[in-house]
Amino acid sequence: MEHAKPLPSYLVQRFHGWQKTTYTDNQSWYRRLADEGQHPRAMVISCCDSRVHVTSIFGADQGEFFIHRNIANLVPPYEPGGDYHGTSAAVEFAVGALKVAHLIIMGHSNCGGVKGCIDMCSGNAPELSDGTSFVGKWMELLRPGYDRVKDTADPATLQRTLEKEAVVTSLTNLMTFPFVRDAVESGRLSLHGLWHEIGDGALECYNPDRGTFETV
Amino acid sequence: MEHAKPLPSYLVQRFHGWQKTTYTDNQSWYRRLADEGQHPRAMVISCCDSRVHVTSIFGADQGEFFIHRNIANLVPPYEPGGDYHGTSAAVEFAVGALKVAHLIIMGHSNCGGVKGCIDMCSGNAPELSDGTSFVGKWMELLRPGYDRVKDTADPATLQRTLEKEAVVTSLTNLMTFPFVRDAVESGRLSLHGLWHEIGDGALECYNPDRGTFETV
Amino acid sequence: MEHAKPLPSYLVQRFHGWQKTTYTDNQSWYRRLADEGQHPRAMVISCCDSRVHVTSIFGADQGEFFIHRNIANLVPPYEPGGDYHGTSAAVEFAVGALKVAHLIIMGHSNCGGVKGCIDMCSGNAPELSDGTSFVGKWMELLRPGYDRVKDTADPATLQRTLEKEAVVTSLTNLMTFPFVRDAVESGRLSLHGLWHEIGDGALECYNPDRGTFETV
Amino acid sequence: MEHAKPLPSYLVQRFHGWQKTTYTDNQSWYRRLADEGQHPRAMVISCCDSRVHVTSIFGADQGEFFIHRNIANLVPPYEPGGDYHGTSAAVEFAVGALKVAHLIIMGHSNCGGVKGCIDMCSGNAPELSDGTSFVGKWMELLRPGYDRVKDTADPATLQRTLEKEAVVTSLTNLMTFPFVRDAVESGRLSLHGLWHEIGDGALECYNPDRGTFETV
Repeated sequence: MEHAKPLPSYLVQRFHGWQKTTYTDNQSWYRRLADEGQHPRAMVISCCDSRVHVTSIFGADQGEFFIHRNIANLVPPYEPGGDYHGTSAAVEFAVGALKVAHLIIMGHSNCGGVKGCIDMCSGNAPELSDGTSFVGKWMELLRPGYDRVKDTADPATLQRTLEKEAVVTSLTNLMTFPFVRDAVESGRLSLHGLWHEIGDGALECYNPDRGTFETV
Repeated sequence: MEHAKPLPSYLVQRFHGWQKTTYTDNQSWYRRLADEGQHPRAMVISCCDSRVHVTSIFGADQGEFFIHRNIANLVPPYEPGGDYHGTSAAVEFAVGALKVAHLIIMGHSNCGGVKGCIDMCSGNAPELSDGTSFVGKWMELLRPGYDRVKDTADPATLQRTLEKEAVVTSLTNLMTFPFVRDAVESGRLSLHGLWHEIGDGALECYNPDRGTFETV
Repeated sequence: MEHAKPLPSYLVQRFHGWQKTTYTDNQSWYRRLADEGQHPRAMVISCCDSRVHVTSIFGADQGEFFIHRNIANLVPPYEPGGDYHGTSAAVEFAVGALKVAHLIIMGHSNCGGVKGCIDMCSGNAPELSDGTSFVGKWMELLRPGYDRVKDTADPATLQRTLEKEAVVTSLTNLMTFPFVRDAVESGRLSLHGLWHEIGDGALECYNPDRGTFETV
Repeated sequence: MEHAKPLPSYLVQRFHGWQKTTYTDNQSWYRRLADEGQHPRAMVISCCDSRVHVTSIFGADQGEFFIHRNIANLVPPYEPGGDYHGTSAAVEFAVGALKVAHLIIMGHSNCGGVKGCIDMCSGNAPELSDGTSFVGKWMELLRPGYDRVKDTADPATLQRTLEKEAVVTSLTNLMTFPFVRDAVESGRLSLHGLWHEIGDGALECYNPDRGTFETV
C-alpha cells in the first residue's frame, strides 16, 4: 500500500496540543478506558455530516456513546443472508456484546443524503439511479419513505419531512432485527428518534403516540 | 413505529445546557454551516468504539471532518454489484460530492471488532463464524489480514498487529475504488493511515516506504 | 498538595450548561437557601452506590434532604469514646442542630458492600477479614446481621435478606443514640427503613409490627 | 426494632410519580445497571448539606458518580488501626474495587460543619469541644486547617477560607492512603478539589501550582 501520506502538519500540531493538555489532564480516565474496557450507556446512529456532533450536543465524553455514522443515519432492514452489512454489524455489537440501554437515531436538517434521495426519486439525478452509484443504492433504503411523503407541498418542507421519515424508517427497521425486538420487548433496550436543526440549534424527539416530532 | 421512548431527562438537561452555552456562543457559525452547507477538509473513517473521538484528538469543530464510523474502521473492496454498502456510499459522497482533500483511516488499540476477528479466525468463536452473525460477516473483511499476521508471537502483539493491518487493508481497499484511485493519482486526494493507543494517548501514522507505523 | 488536577472539560462544559439553565431559572431559590440557611425536613442515610439517587426517586430539590452516604447505609452503635465517627457526627448534626422530622435509612439491591460482607463472613474474602481492609472493618458492623440470616437457602435470597437486615441494623443502632431515642420517644423524630430494587424500580418499607418489608 | 414508621404519604406519592414516569421511561437503563453492575467514572466526596447536589450541577445520571457524603466533606488521614472508618472504607471501595478514574472533593459555601469548627476552635462552642459531641470530634480533623488560616481578617472571609482549607486537607489526607498514592502516581487516578458557592451558583477549582481556587 504505497499511497499513504504523512499526516498533515496542522493535524500533527493539534494532536500534540491535545496530548499535552486534554490527554495529560485526563490520563487516569483514558488509562481506565483502556484497562477496564468500554461500558457505553447508549448507541447513537447519526449522519457522517461534518456538522453533526452528538458528543458536543449532549456533553458526552470518551466512553459514553458507541457511535455508528453513515449517510443519512439509515438502518437497513434485517437481512441475514446479505453481504457486508456494516450497520447491522454495529447494531449487533452494541446490543449483543455491549448491552447498551439506549439506541438513538439522530437525524438532522440540511442532510445531503436525503437531498440526494429526493433528487433521485423525483427523477432529477440519473447518476444516482443508474445503478453505478453507492450513494444511490444506499438511499434506496429511503425510497419507501419518499413515496409516503412525496406529496408534501414545498421543497423545503419535503426535505425536512423526509429527514424525519428517515429516522422513523430506521426505528422501524431496527425492530425487524430479532435481537433488537427481544431487547426492546423485555425492557432491556429503549429506542429514541431525534432530529436536530443545525442552524437553530434545536432538537426534536419522535413521539410515537402522535406520530410527530416534538421540541425537546 | 410505536416503540420509541422520550429522550432520557439527563440528556434533555444537558442538551438545554449546550443550547444556552456552546450554541449561543457560536450561533453565527452554526447558522453559516446551515446556510452555506458543509465544506469539510477531510473524511475520517474510525471505529464505533466509544473511546475514539477524532474531533477531540484533533481539536476539530463542527464542519471540519466528514466522519464515517463502523466496526473496526474497515473499508470493503470495490464491489459495484453489491447491496447496501454504507461504507462505500460514504466514501463516494465524501470524494465525489464533497471533494475532501484527505481521507484518514483511524484504527485504535483495544478494538473489540479486531478481537472478535482473531477469536473467529482462530476457531474460538463459532457464534461469529456460523453465518448468523453480522459482526462475523463484517469481520470476514479482515480474514486475509489475519492470515498474513497470525503467526505473530503473543496474543497482545497479534491484537495490535491486526489492528494496524486493518488500517492498511482499508487503505488498500480504498484504492480499488476507481474514483478514489483517480483522485489520489491526480493529487486531489491524499490517504492517511493512523493508529491510536487509547491508554497512552499516543498516535502512530503509517509510513508506506517502510511498511510500518511511526509515532506522530 | 501538589497532586490536584483541573476539572475534566466535559464536567466544566456541563456545569456551565447547568449555570445557564437550572441555576438561572431557580436563582431566587438558591439565593434564599444561601441567605436563610437550610431547613431540611428529613435526613436520608443511603449507600454510596452510583445507582442510588434518593433525590431522583422522591422528586426532591435542593434543600429538602440532608443526606449522608456511606458503604451499605450503615449506622454504627453509639460509642461516645470512639474516634472520627463520620456517620455519628452526621446523625448528631441532623437531629440536634437541624432538628429533622424524619430519618430514613435507604438500602438497595445489588449492594456491593453487603456482597463483600457475605464473602467475608463466609470465609471467602481473606483480603477483607485480615484486618488491613477498611471495607472489611466497616462491614464488621453487619456481621451480627449476617449471623442472624446466614442460613437463608440460596445466595440471591441471602443477599437481599442481608441488605434488608442492614437497614434494620441501622435503625436499631440509631436507637442506641440517646439524642435519637429522646427525639423518637417525644414524637419529634420518626425513623423509616426502606429498601430499593434498582432493576425493577420497586420500593419496600419496613413494617416493625410484622418484621417484614412491604411494597410501597 | 419497633420504632420504624411508615413512609410519609407525600413521599409515597412522589415515589409513585417517579415509577410511572422517570422509571418507566428509563427502565432499560435501570435494568442494565442492575444486571451489569455499576461502572462509575468518578467518586465524589461532598457534604451532607441539603443544598449540595453534585448530580444536578454536573448533569449526571444514575450510575455516573460513586458518592460519599459526610459533614464538611472531610477525609481523615490514613489510620489502619482505627475503628469504623466509613470514609476510608468508601475511598478504598471506590479506588480498589470500582477503580474510579477521578476522586473529587466538593466543598461549598455556608457550610454548617465548618462554622461549627470555627466556633469550637475559637472557644465559642464548649458543647462541641467537651468531648461529648461527635460533630466536635469529627471537626477536629479540620483544627490544623483552622490554625493555619485563623488570622484571616473578617469572619465571612475566614468561613470561606476554611471551607477551602477543608478541601485541601481532604486532598492531602487522601495522599496518605498508600492505595490512593499508588493510583495517583501511576496515572490511574486523578484528584480534584472544588468549592461551590450556593447562592451565586459559582464553582471554583483548586490549582495546586498557585495554591488558590479559581473560577471554573
